[in-house]
Amino acid sequence: MSKLVIVGTVAFDAIETPFGKTDKILGGAATYIGLSASQFDVNSAIVSIAGDDFPQEYLDLLSSKNIDISGIEIVKEGKTFFWSGRYHNDMNSRDTLVTELNTLADFNPVVPENYRDAEIVMLGNLHPIVQQSVLDQMTTKPKLVVLDTMNFWMDCALDDLLSVIKNVDVITINDEEARQLTGEYSLVVAARKIHDMGPKYVVIKKGEHGALLFHNDSVFYAPALPLEEVFDPTGAGDTFAGGFSGYLAKTEDISFENMKNAVIYGSTLASFCVEKFGTERMENLSSKEVHQRLVQFKQLTQFEIELA
Amino acid sequence: MSKLVIVGTVAFDAIETPFGKTDKILGGAATYIGLSASQFDVNSAIVSIAGDDFPQEYLDLLSSKNIDISGIEIVKEGKTFFWSGRYHNDMNSRDTLVTELNTLADFNPVVPENYRDAEIVMLGNLHPIVQQSVLDQMTTKPKLVVLDTMNFWMDCALDDLLSVIKNVDVITINDEEARQLTGEYSLVVAARKIHDMGPKYVVIKKGEHGALLFHNDSVFYAPALPLEEVFDPTGAGDTFAGGFSGYLAKTEDISFENMKNAVIYGSTLASFCVEKFGTERMENLSSKEVHQRLVQFKQLTQFEIELA
Repeated sequence: MSKLVIVGTVAFDAIETPFGKTDKILGGAATYIGLSASQFDVNSAIVSIAGDDFPQEYLDLLSSKNIDISGIEIVKEGKTFFWSGRYHNDMNSRDTLVTELNTLADFNPVVPENYRDAEIVMLGNLHPIVQQSVLDQMTTKPKLVVLDTMNFWMDCALDDLLSVIKNVDVITINDEEARQLTGEYSLVVAARKIHDMGPKYVVIKKGEHGALLFHNDSVFYAPALPLEEVFDPTGAGDTFAGGFSGYLAKTEDISFENMKNAVIYGSTLASFCVEKFGTERMENLSSKEVHQRLVQFKQLTQFEIELA
Repeated sequence: MSKLVIVGTVAFDAIETPFGKTDKILGGAATYIGLSASQFDVNSAIVSIAGDDFPQEYLDLLSSKNIDISGIEIVKEGKTFFWSGRYHNDMNSRDTLVTELNTLADFNPVVPENYRDAEIVMLGNLHPIVQQSVLDQMTTKPKLVVLDTMNFWMDCALDDLLSVIKNVDVITINDEEARQLTGEYSLVVAARKIHDMGPKYVVIKKGEHGALLFHNDSVFYAPALPLEEVFDPTGAGDTFAGGFSGYLAKTEDISFENMKNAVIYGSTLASFCVEKFGTERMENLSSKEVHQRLVQFKQLTQFEIELA
């Protein structure tokens, strides 16, 4: 089994959806990625930063999922990154109400010694300079580096983003961001341009419309499971990334064919994430439930046309 | 092999897209459905109406595809239905520039005698009273009735639409129309409500995001093939319906499992339709090309996760 390094935020989130609102609850990209990857019993470590207002029970939760938290720096008298957002009725768009960087503003990630030879590195959404700094600490070249990012960094740190993108194998990005990054409307053309920027594999996330995996001239399309209702989309993309990278860490097979399976696992886990507020659903997700939903995914997508 | 009755418009279309514009060219729902279904060498007949300005070469084209055109009424000194539209840059939305009903305003469909026992009836987008009138002419109950419709009839003939919907087995409808018809945002909930209106099978078309097939608690999701560029979306939905109904007519198997295949064939054929203006691509489509694209569809969607 491969080791998996996860870098990203741990955070407080306050979320409003048409279904209700929360006080400050556990959030952050690394949190969702870690919880999702933990479905695969991999050896994983989170590299992150928080203030000492970050509850011990949140750290204990991560530890209980067999995640190494020695790379989470706790800043004395510091405050944890806080994000608050409100989803529109369509649940696809949202307004950010509050962003307090707090300790995240001075985040210098330190990868634990025993994870500097990790085979898989999952760079969650963060400033691209922070993402690069994690790569620079790896003592052996990882088998696979996966990067997630967002439009914010395209707006305010594009050169840094392009620099780190050169050094990754897989990028996960949503459809509008792929269009913004390349200036191309067609996702096929956008994926090719991103491929030319460095990543051999390009995953374009389309929310309720699923996800596309591009590699050279090949493409794979994993639909999202049609859901009766999406309760809270927060963390769905990170959960996808956690399932994707966790599955690859477990199977140690980074072929395109196996990456298709990783996309299916990512989509499957994300379909759970949105069923409840925040991390609630992912905290109590059994392998049996995951298995049952994979069966649904097969029924959803597999067909029996015989071709000579 | 089953007989297939197709009712719908034959028309002149004038189309503007970001790639160019056409003069009056061959169009109409029944035209696209018929050309698409002809890929399956089925016995099909089009029931429609046109003026005597409708060129003989268009009729000859349909005949050359083995489509019975005896049910196309040609009105002396009448003018053929004309539609003109302009697509926006995203190719998903369009403005109607001109709609001239002409002979279509007085269309009383007459199903040819030898097709009144057809096993499959494909009701293309038309006034729901016209659609019902075709059903009323069938001397034996069809094995399968498929209905396509659009928001226009929900706005101006909802009661008639709900009446005919009661009598069909499959409805094909796009996502926004499904939401309008039911007042539900979730397509899962919308499909269930449409199911309660009559159709045992509900196909929701999502354009570049593919198509969903609902039946009781089962759902199947056929993605659209990601295309480098969509040249002209006109007729894609009708081409889907033609592939869907044509495949079912050929295979004579209306099980849910085989309907999945029909959705894949419909999506495959629609992916050709949009590559050129109007019917051009469908007029010259070889079975070898269709076969190759089905192979692509398999690669696009099939994965190999073994589940106990």
